[in-house]
Parts: sequence; C-alpha cells; structure tokens
Amino acid sequence: MVVVMRGGASDADVTKVVKAISEVGGDAFVSRGKNQTIIGLVGDLAQFTELPLHAFPGVEDVIRVSKPYKLVSTETHPRPSTVWVGDSSIGRDTVTLIAGPCAVETEEQTEQGCRMAKEAGATILRGGAYKPRTSPYAFQGLGEPGLDILHGVSRDLDLPFVTEVVTPADVDTVAAKADMLQVGARNMQNFQLLKEVGMAGKPVLLKRGLTATIDEWIMAAEYIAHTGNLQVVLCERGIRTYEPMTRNTLDVSAVPVAQSLTHLPVIIDPSHSGGKRELVLPLIRAGIAVGADGLIVDVHPKPEAALCDGPQALVRDDLLQLRETVQRFAGAAGREVATVDRQRREGAWGRSAATA
Amino acid sequence: MVVVMRGGASDADVTKVVKAISEVGGDAFVSRGKNQTIIGLVGDLAQFTELPLHAFPGVEDVIRVSKPYKLVSTETHPRPSTVWVGDSSIGRDTVTLIAGPCAVETEEQTEQGCRMAKEAGATILRGGAYKPRTSPYAFQGLGEPGLDILHGVSRDLDLPFVTEVVTPADVDTVAAKADMLQVGARNMQNFQLLKEVGMAGKPVLLKRGLTATIDEWIMAAEYIAHTGNLQVVLCERGIRTYEPMTRNTLDVSAVPVAQSLTHLPVIIDPSHSGGKRELVLPLIRAGIAVGADGLIVDVHPKPEAALCDGPQALVRDDLLQLRETVQRFAGAAGREVATVDRQRREGAWGRSAATA
Amino acid sequence: MVVVMRGGASDADVTKVVKAISEVGGDAFVSRGKNQTIIGLVGDLAQFTELPLHAFPGVEDVIRVSKPYKLVSTETHPRPSTVWVGDSSIGRDTVTLIAGPCAVETEEQTEQGCRMAKEAGATILRGGAYKPRTSPYAFQGLGEPGLDILHGVSRDLDLPFVTEVVTPADVDTVAAKADMLQVGARNMQNFQLLKEVGMAGKPVLLKRGLTATIDEWIMAAEYIAHTGNLQVVLCERGIRTYEPMTRNTLDVSAVPVAQSLTHLPVIIDPSHSGGKRELVLPLIRAGIAVGADGLIVDVHPKPEAALCDGPQALVRDDLLQLRETVQRFAGAAGREVATVDRQRREGAWGRSAATA
Amino acid sequence: MVVVMRGGASDADVTKVVKAISEVGGDAFVSRGKNQTIIGLVGDLAQFTELPLHAFPGVEDVIRVSKPYKLVSTETHPRPSTVWVGDSSIGRDTVTLIAGPCAVETEEQTEQGCRMAKEAGATILRGGAYKPRTSPYAFQGLGEPGLDILHGVSRDLDLPFVTEVVTPADVDTVAAKADMLQVGARNMQNFQLLKEVGMAGKPVLLKRGLTATIDEWIMAAEYIAHTGNLQVVLCERGIRTYEPMTRNTLDVSAVPVAQSLTHLPVIIDPSHSGGKRELVLPLIRAGIAVGADGLIVDVHPKPEAALCDGPQALVRDDLLQLRETVQRFAGAAGREVATVDRQRREGAWGRSAATA
Repeated sequence: MVVVMRGGASDADVTKVVKAISEVGGDAFVSRGKNQTIIGLVGDLAQFTELPLHAFPGVEDVIRVSKPYKLVSTETHPRPSTVWVGDSSIGRDTVTLIAGPCAVETEEQTEQGCRMAKEAGATILRGGAYKPRTSPYAFQGLGEPGLDILHGVSRDLDLPFVTEVVTPADVDTVAAKADMLQVGARNMQNFQLLKEVGMAGKPVLLKRGLTATIDEWIMAAEYIAHTGNLQVVLCERGIRTYEPMTRNTLDVSAVPVAQSLTHLPVIIDPSHSGGKRELVLPLIRAGIAVGADGLIVDVHPKPEAALCDGPQALVRDDLLQLRETVQRFAGAAGREVATVDRQRREGAWGRSAATA
Repeated sequence: MVVVMRGGASDADVTKVVKAISEVGGDAFVSRGKNQTIIGLVGDLAQFTELPLHAFPGVEDVIRVSKPYKLVSTETHPRPSTVWVGDSSIGRDTVTLIAGPCAVETEEQTEQGCRMAKEAGATILRGGAYKPRTSPYAFQGLGEPGLDILHGVSRDLDLPFVTEVVTPADVDTVAAKADMLQVGARNMQNFQLLKEVGMAGKPVLLKRGLTATIDEWIMAAEYIAHTGNLQVVLCERGIRTYEPMTRNTLDVSAVPVAQSLTHLPVIIDPSHSGGKRELVLPLIRAGIAVGADGLIVDVHPKPEAALCDGPQALVRDDLLQLRETVQRFAGAAGREVATVDRQRREGAWGRSAATA
Repeated sequence: MVVVMRGGASDADVTKVVKAISEVGGDAFVSRGKNQTIIGLVGDLAQFTELPLHAFPGVEDVIRVSKPYKLVSTETHPRPSTVWVGDSSIGRDTVTLIAGPCAVETEEQTEQGCRMAKEAGATILRGGAYKPRTSPYAFQGLGEPGLDILHGVSRDLDLPFVTEVVTPADVDTVAAKADMLQVGARNMQNFQLLKEVGMAGKPVLLKRGLTATIDEWIMAAEYIAHTGNLQVVLCERGIRTYEPMTRNTLDVSAVPVAQSLTHLPVIIDPSHSGGKRELVLPLIRAGIAVGADGLIVDVHPKPEAALCDGPQALVRDDLLQLRETVQRFAGAAGREVATVDRQRREGAWGRSAATA
Repeated sequence: MVVVMRGGASDADVTKVVKAISEVGGDAFVSRGKNQTIIGLVGDLAQFTELPLHAFPGVEDVIRVSKPYKLVSTETHPRPSTVWVGDSSIGRDTVTLIAGPCAVETEEQTEQGCRMAKEAGATILRGGAYKPRTSPYAFQGLGEPGLDILHGVSRDLDLPFVTEVVTPADVDTVAAKADMLQVGARNMQNFQLLKEVGMAGKPVLLKRGLTATIDEWIMAAEYIAHTGNLQVVLCERGIRTYEPMTRNTLDVSAVPVAQSLTHLPVIIDPSHSGGKRELVLPLIRAGIAVGADGLIVDVHPKPEAALCDGPQALVRDDLLQLRETVQRFAGAAGREVATVDRQRREGAWGRSAATA
C-alpha cells in the first residue's frame, strides 16, 4: 500500500502514519521529495486496510497496490484448479459447454431444451427454477416444482445441472437437488448468500455483477472460498456500459485478466450479454478464443413462447452450428471440448480440496 | 409499447404480431411506411411484457414507452406522499436530516455520534449494525448487539433510527427494534429481501444500486409496495462511472426525475457518493438545491479511528456548518427543515396507507 | 510516482528501475517487503512520464500520484483567478450568468433570445454560429453570417458574447468578432484547436468532454495555458453514463474537485446535461449550490421552432424564475450575481496575465 | 420515428404533431390507447429530425426507430465492401494484419518495427508521425520528418502504410504520402477533419471514439462518405468503462453489430484497448473469432525505450506467435489471411466507387 501525503503535510503528519503502521506490525518506507512525500507500506495488507489512513491529517490518498484476495489468488495457489460438477469438469485445459433453457416453464419444454443442450455437446445442464426479475409482475420461476423437473430431466439425461439460488433460505432446498449452485449477477455482493452457498459444499457458479470490477468479483469468490469451499467457477456475463445496442457489453478482456489473478476457472455467458440471438455464436467464438474455460448458453425449444429471455435463446436450427463452433474454436485455442468422465477427479483440485 | 419491424418483414409477420396482441386483449395499430413498419400497442403493458415479441419473425426491436410501475407511480397517486418514521417525517415540503455514525463500533462512539447528529438538527438517527463489506476480512458490523446499542441511544435521545438489514433472515430481528429499515445499494435487486422488508411493515429507506437505472430503482420500490407497504423513501447515493476522482458520481438529476415519476420522497446520501469529507457539504447544498426531500449523512466523533468509511464522515467541527447549511439551503429551496412532530401524522400518507 | 514490482521481480529488476530514474535526475526510494517491493519516485514528473517504466522487466504497475498539470494548478497559483470577458467577469466570488440561443438561426430569433438573456440577468451572451452535429444531414449553423448577427446583437445590447469554434481554420475569423471562444465537449481533446484557440489571446470556455476524466479536462486547459493564455473557464456539461433518462449526467462533484485542483473558474451547463426543459432550473440550483462560478443556459424565443436542441431551452415564461433563482441561490451560496463592471479588471488575473 | 404523448395530452396536441409531420411530407399514424397515445411517423427521417417535436405541447418523448445513416448503411448497399490500400485489401472474406510501431521515433526504430510487422504477416504498415497526446509536455510525434521516414520504409518494404492525421491543416501533407489516413478516437467527432479527410480521396481508417455509441461511430463514417469517399474502415479500439484493470474495454460485440448495420469493413485494435502486452494476443484471437475483418497491432523493436505506449507493443519474440495466431484463428473463422495482391481491385468496391 502507498500513502500519498498532501503538498503541505508536516513531518509530524508523516511520523503519525509511520507510527500507526508500525503499531500494527508493518513497515513504512518514506520517499521524501521536494514537492511530495509518499510512504510505502509493506506487511500484512489486511491490517492496514482496517486503519482509517485516509482520515489521518496530511494524507491525500491511500493506494492499494497488492490484491486483497488470498485463497483464490494465483499467488497462494499458482496452478489452475479444475472444478468438478458430478462427472463433468471445468478447467484450464478444456472448454466446457453448459446449456439449457433460461427458465423452467414446463416439464416438456425443460426436457426438450435439455435434450437439445446434450445434443449440442453440453456436459452440464442449466435451467432456472427461481428467477430474479426486475418487475414483481414478471414470471418469477416455478420454484421447488421447477427444481424437481430439472432434477428429473438431469437424471434422465445422465448429466449434472446448475441452477440459480436467489436467497439464503432456499440454499438447502436447492443444494439437495442441484449439482452446482449459481449466484446471479444481481446477487454477486449478497454476502450472506455467498456464505451460505459456500457452506452448502456444492460447486458454485459465480456471475460477475452488472457493474462489478474484476477485483470485486474475485473478492466475492473469496467470500465463498472463506467458508472452505474452493469449487468456484467465475462467469463473465457482460457489464453495463453506455452502449444501447447490446443488452450488456461482454468484457472478454476480463477472462485472461481474471485467469492471471485467480486459479479458478473462468467461463462466459454469451446469451445474456448480447441479448440477441444473432450475437450468441459470435460471442461464443470470441469467448473460446480469448481463453474461456467454458460457456453457459440459453437454448429453448420454442423461443417465441419463452416466458423469459426468449430473444437470446438458441433454437434447434442453431444447435449443429453451436456444436461445430465450440469444436472448431476449442481446437484453434489448443483445447479439447470437455466430455463426461466417469473415472473422474483423480488428482483434481475438487478432490484435493475436499480431502485437504 | 412499440414494435419495430425489420425492413424485409412480410405482411404475415405483421399480422402475427397484431394477432398475438389481440389475443391478450390489447390493440395494435400499424403504421406502414415505404421502408419501415411500426406497430403501436395500447392496452395492459404487463400482458405484452410477457409476450416474447422480440423473438417473433420479422421483429427488429420492441420499445417500451410507458412505465412498468403502478403503485408507486405518480400516475396512480399524483400527490407526493409523506413517510413517517416515529414522529419524524420525510416529504415534499421539508428537508429531513438523517445522521449518525456509518457503523456502530462501541456504545460510546455511537452515543457521541448520534448526539452530534441531534445537535446538527437530525430528526432521524442512522447507524450500521450489519455492514455489507466487499472483503470477508473487513469489519462486518456488531450485529444484534450493535442493534441494541443503537436502540438504546435512540431512546435516550428520543429520536427514531434507521439501520440496514442485509439478509432476509435478519428482517424480523431488525424490524423489532429499528424504526426504519434500510436496503443498501448492493441489495437493491435482492428481491427476496425487498419482499420481506416490505412485509415487516416498517418504513423503508431504499438506496439506488451502484449502477441501477432510475427505472430499476423505482421498480425495486414497486416490489416493496407490492407487499402493501407504501412507506418507502428513495435514496440517491451516487452511481458508478468512469471518473476515478470521486468514489461515485452523485446523480443529482435523478432527484427531480424520480420525483416526477413516483410519489415517494427522494433523499440523497452525500457521504458515500463523494467519498471525501470535503465534498460532503457541497453535495449537501447541491442535493437540497436540486429538490431532495432529505439527506443521510455520516458523522463520527473520531474519524481517524473509524472502522468503516472514516474518510467521509463529518466531524465535530463540521456540525455547526452542517446545521447552518441545511437551514440556509432549505430556505432558498422554499422548504423548512423538518422537526420532530409529536402531534403527528394527521392526514399524512403514512397514516392513510396504514388505515386504507 | 510509484512503481510496483511483480511478486517475482529480481534485485536486478529493481536496480534497473532505480538506475533509469537517477539517469533522468530523479530519486528512487525502495520499499522492500516480503511479498512485494514498491519504489517511490520523487523529482520531475514530466521526465519520468517519458520513461516507459511499464515495459521494464519485473514491473507490474506504475501509479502516478501527483498531478501532471502545472500552469493551471492550484499548486503553482493557489489564488483563484478571475477571467474577464469584455467588462464581465467570471470568478470565485460571484455567479455569472451566460445565456442566449443554442444556435443562431435568424437575426430576429437571435436578437430576441439575447434580449431575453439580458433581462434574465446574463452579463455574457451565447449563441452558436458553427454547430458540431452528429449527422452530416443536420443543420450545421450559419457560419460567418451567424457570427455577424451575434456580433451585431451583442453590440446593440452592450454585452460581450461567447461562441463555439469547431476547427483551427476558423479561429482567426471567430476571434476577430467574439469576446470569448468556446471549445465544445467533442473537441476537448482536439489538441491543435486548443493550441490555436489559446494563441488567439481571447478568453476560452472549455467544456468537459463527454467522457473525460477531471484530470484530462484540466490537462486540456493546460494545453491552452501552455500557449501563454491563462484566461480559461472550465465548464462541466454532463458526462455519459448508462442512465437513459437524462441526456447526460451532470457531475456536480466535478465542480468542487476541479476548483481544488486548478485556479481557473468552473461553471456548469444545465441545459445540455439534462436535455429536458424541466430539469434546467433544478440543475441551475444544484450548480450554484455546489459552488459553480457561473452558468451557461440555452434560451429560445420559440423552442418549438428551434433547429437545434429545442427541448432544453428555457422560454420567456421561465425567465423571471431564472433570474430569481440565480439571485436566491447565489445568495445562499454567499455570492453575488455578477454584474457588468465598467471600471473593471484592476488587479484581476486577466489583466496581470496580459501584462505579465 | 415514434412520438409518445404525455398522459394528459389533448386531441389538439395530437393534431398539432400530425399536422407538422404532414407539412414536411410525412405520414403520421395515431395509436390511441386509454392511458397513452403514440404516433408512428413514416417518411423521410431527415426531415422529421429537424422538427423540434420534443418541444411540442403534450409530447413526452420522441424515439428514433430507423437508422440515420444512408450511404454506409447495409440498407442502401447490402453487399459488404472491400477497401483497398495500395495492393492490400480489407474486406469480409479475409483477415488483414496492419502492424508497425505506435510512434515513429527514429528511422532505425521505424525500419526495424515495420520489418517485424512484415515478417509477422502484415500487408499494411502503421506508424504515428503526428501523435495526439493528453499532455502538452508529452512527445508529440516527429511530424513531417516522421512522415518521410514512414514513406521511405514503406517503399523499401513494398507495403502501403496508414498514419494518423490530427488536424485539417495537415490533411494534404499527410495524404500526399500516406496510403491510408487514420482518424483517431479523440477526433471521431472532429467533423471538419472527417470532411477534409474524406475529400482527400484516400482510404480512411476511422477509430471509434472512447465513448461513442455504435450509431455515432457509423454516423462519423457517414460524414466521410458524404464527401463521396466510401473507402472507410471502422476500427473498434476499446470503450471507456468503470473497470480500472484494463486501459479500455474491447467491445467485441460491436464488430458483428456494426457489420450488420454497415457494409464497411470493421477491424479491431487489440493493443490500445487492453493496454498490456499480455492481453494483445488473447484480444487478437477474440477479435478474429468474433468476425473482425482485420487487426491493427503495435510492434516495437525495443518497447523498453518506446516514447509512447511501450507497455502494449509486441516484441520480436511475440512475432512468430502473432503470425501463427492470426493464421490459426482466421482458419477457424473460415477466412484467409489477407496477402498483397498485385492484380488487384477488379470488381472491388474501391474501384467501382472511384469510377462511379
């Protein structure tokens, strides 16, 4: 951390900072210039963070130069980790396709959507039983019956599924059936939810908040990790910008940046970021090319009838192209498309984390 | 709502939209031009919203031209409402000062901070017992003991208090003691929390999300209203922009815009938006001048020792100026500074809502 | 400046940075921690800036902690300066009203608009003869004939006027007639224009770019100052954010922040930021309250017929309220409304700058 | 276009709008609902745009539903166009690599940088002789001597070059030597520059403004096209967002969106968007994958000594990887890497435009 003193700061002001740092066990190095003095702090960042240095007399600015996360950081754990969801994995060597309907509407639609997903090469299914909706008048999801439908379809198709949980009270119910719990963009800083999801012991898919910095996103993963659960997958799903032509702006740079800072897998959501069907395949290509470890894609047997996010779902005709696109760009990126592995998890992080 | 057809849309495509609208009971008016056809929809917006018109063949865009909120809208309730918190009110004719320490740290600090607030003219106290923090390693608030401290100080000083609730499971505990429940910026779209806070029957202070549009913010208020609780106060607290020099950008325009769309009171938070002590008074002046119905301000007896948000808290020396500033700018804005009213609530919305 | 070394940086990497700094005449102080080493640089920032430190081996980040501007900085010139436009001034003790039609359309409309402005208390007139328009098919301004109209009206009403210049080739023509040159938001980083406008020797009104940081905005002023012309007035006119309900988001915090960093006057433009007539007065109030040194406001005798930006122009009925509002809030802010001063400029910065 | 009337608008208000539209030769269709009336306008958009409908009584909002550009639009010219720069082309079937040093510093550095570019597969060279710099104290480019250096190197290597022109007065000088003129992000709405660059008759590389919407960007291309010059290439180079970890956020979605709206080629700049060397290759991969028609990349023989933007330049060791990456991802995207074509331009748009 660096403390920048104001132009007119006195020696006593500088001393006060140095003293406070040494009292919490850190070292402070003073760089004294003609016009400006800056103080470099080395030691345990967490302690300094609690010091209200900003409010010290003569202090102009306090700049954090090291990262606040620990458990999920590449500094503590340089080797990329693989997260296992049932017999399906998400990790740095493969491209994993997660697909399914945005919302569970009926058993038939869910079954058809998930079957489409499997045909397209998905190794993990997705579907929403609890939907966070901007309007109280919009379809809120089927809730527990939706969960049962998903569970049934997942077992029929012999593929694990991920589904969103929107509030702490539902965590146990959802965790009892789902293979992976999703924390949505709007809940990325719902800290109680992060804690409870972490404690449920299932792998977690953590979407980036609509306007979260990469640091805040990784810090949200640290909340989950802090409960002892390191099976977290980060998902970039588009950030809010001034551009009105796309629903959100998919921040592809966030993928390599996050991968350099954390050992967790990072995937992208091409459906919710673009908000238009014709953007889904181009964004899938971009996501795999930039190095994403996987994709989560909306499919719908009949988007014209979809109760939620119809415009961006891929339809039956797109599936062959989806499968082929993932195949081709994974190849270009030097990766294999992930497949289900029944002899799984030997030596993987998920396992070692569980046994550590 | 307006449906814009693509250049090459066929007559059959247009007919399909018109038919779908009439099936849900709406009227569709077709404006057919040489290059473009647009369809105006009139009727019940909620029904159209559920129709996945975006996914219809030939549809280029669907534009919503009316507002999705009902209960909190000025269209349904044109007269501005007054929200009562104990014997203190927040409404369109006065400027209400809410003040107190950001976080409850100790009984002494809370008592001193709240006493400072009262001296500065506050009629509602504030203080955080549960703190949503970006880092799991940061001070998370005292929890229930903090609530007890706040309650004690509030009763000693004979002023009501508002405090944040961060998760549904805490709502009952907090509502049992607090006079007003705050939903923080990070939880603005924590829909389950909105519902439970609404059902607690206490007035609610709803902060605008860091990156929420004004529409989304009002829609979050509609979630609360939808539970039957119309005692909601909106709080603009700065939005996230690219500008690094301030913590957030206080969007003063949002105050008159929100006041034109909803009958709810709208206040500002000058402490968290600027993030610097020297910006607090200028932003208070701007907020009152633009027409805010109140302010929520951090004060701290000793910001150098504050465990949370020290840099932006006003200190003892600022208080006289705070009181005098609020007085002077409320006067310029043609309002009175709100005082505690022991013969309160006659004819006010809070009362009528409760008895309606 | 602070250089942050990567975790694995070697001693040789650190030495290389230290050596490069000392070669350009600076001092480098090394803060060596267990996990991280940071190097504080003190000396002449300009020299360090040219060093490509980011590209040195082992360097993770380079953080600038002091400001890059000199001539316009409060560090070099702590006393706020007053800029004179004819006999009208803009400075820290008064509130100056600049008003007039957005675009010069006809002599009659300009004369009426400017007369309205004068009646409302304006001491500087405004009007656009050259209009930067997003579309090549939109009205581009009358050009030189428009300038002549403005000049005539200005002399008739005995008030100076400011007008925008959009390209270097027009600077001489515009400077020959206008009393102040405006650089618009889109041209804030048109560096050649900044230089030529500076060299024209007339006072300059510099609008903040749509997405410029405060630092970049002040740096653009430094470009003008660098030509020897310190008669620059900064104008905050709203920044681009994700919020669709207002044309731009007026960043009121930028006013006190810029005033703390530079000695130049800072005014606001309430017309272009809100984009709606009903927001103009609230934003004027907010601007004066936050401490702006002036305002630039669109008025139009008949906005329904305006060829440019009609929706946000104040009309005849608003004028009395405008005059009264400026009066009242200037009073609350402890300032006088600026008047024309025929015995002007003694001891003012404009004069001293001109004679220095 | 759609005019949305306020709730309380009278019949007379509606009639007034309808009459104004018919007076300029358009048709207005009224959709009258219980709560809201909307008016669909069909006809020539340009005429309606000049009508200040926003300022009409009873009008709440005016929404543009068709695109304001004509000459560059896919509606008028559905077939993607190919732009020729010397014997090198940029178009929808190939991936063109433009590369070279960010700034021309010395003849040797330019020669080495451009040779590196050619070895990596570039068919168009780049280099900056005139640099728009945020600070007046930063290196501003060599100017005309730099142009001569570039010209010499370009002829030696037998490849055309593109270089930025920053002000109208330099257009003739630059156009006399350069094969393609670049308009930088900061000048995207420098309309006089757009016009003069257009009239120079050379192909133009138009960077997207830091905060320009896709519509504004295409509209800037329309300014150039309006001079009769349709040889315009659009370049996405990252937009400004709140995320501090990357210099800008590369908006990959803008590539397919712009390609659907305009027939012009669209390329990406992976160097300036990420601002870090380690992001350049991932963003190149993402750009090609999303469908970009080309890339413009900084290379530098010795980035540690670069006077401008050193941190993001690729170095000698990266070149092989650059060549191979472009090859591989162009293949995955079903395109060929563009090569120089000495029997060029038959039937191409460049030619037909010139002869039309």
